[in-house]
Amino acid sequence: MVKISILYPNSKGSRFDLSYYSQTHMPMAIDLLGTHTGFKGVSVEHGLGGATPGTEATYVAMCHYHFDAVESFMAAFTPHAAILQNDMQNYTDIEPVIQVNEVLISR
Amino acid sequence: MVKISILYPNSKGSRFDLSYYSQTHMPMAIDLLGTHTGFKGVSVEHGLGGATPGTEATYVAMCHYHFDAVESFMAAFTPHAAILQNDMQNYTDIEPVIQVNEVLISR
Repeated sequence: MVKISILYPNSKGSRFDLSYYSQTHMPMAIDLLGTHTGFKGVSVEHGLGGATPGTEATYVAMCHYHFDAVESFMAAFTPHAAILQNDMQNYTDIEPVIQVNEVLISR
Repeated sequence: MVKISILYPNSKGSRFDLSYYSQTHMPMAIDLLGTHTGFKGVSVEHGLGGATPGTEATYVAMCHYHFDAVESFMAAFTPHAAILQNDMQNYTDIEPVIQVNEVLISR
């Protein structure tokens, strides 16, 4: 199992429309990618704060796609890459941190 | 639902014992925190790479605890904070990024 994580840094002066992201962009992305047989789940989150009360979250939002293999994610994502990437300007000007993870424990 | 994310930056020259982390530290942490009624799940991951093939992952490892509320996480974690924080030196010298997230979508 792999997890593809897309993390949006909480940068000063940057723009992030959480409503559009969670109510329009991500539902569209899930509709497009979620029909692939390798799709195993997804999580979308809003950063509330850091470890110490009153500190800001490092990331304003995170999205994690669970797939059976990275090849499945690429096969699911590639046909829709243009529409999803073009839609990003509708909610943010932040360059996300993206990484591929191997899931070691999931409960 | 909240998710507490603990992200270990993939810093050059730093130390991270993935075997100890995934086979000793995290199972101990899950044993200690997982009995709380607010515990809803956990995921432990190893960073394989970045968005572009051949690039390094931003984080060498990630852990995400799912709880019904941040107060439940604190109630579960606080009694075991000392033992868990003292155990960190056994697998890493990296200062993790920690943040609290509100889960907006989970499928």
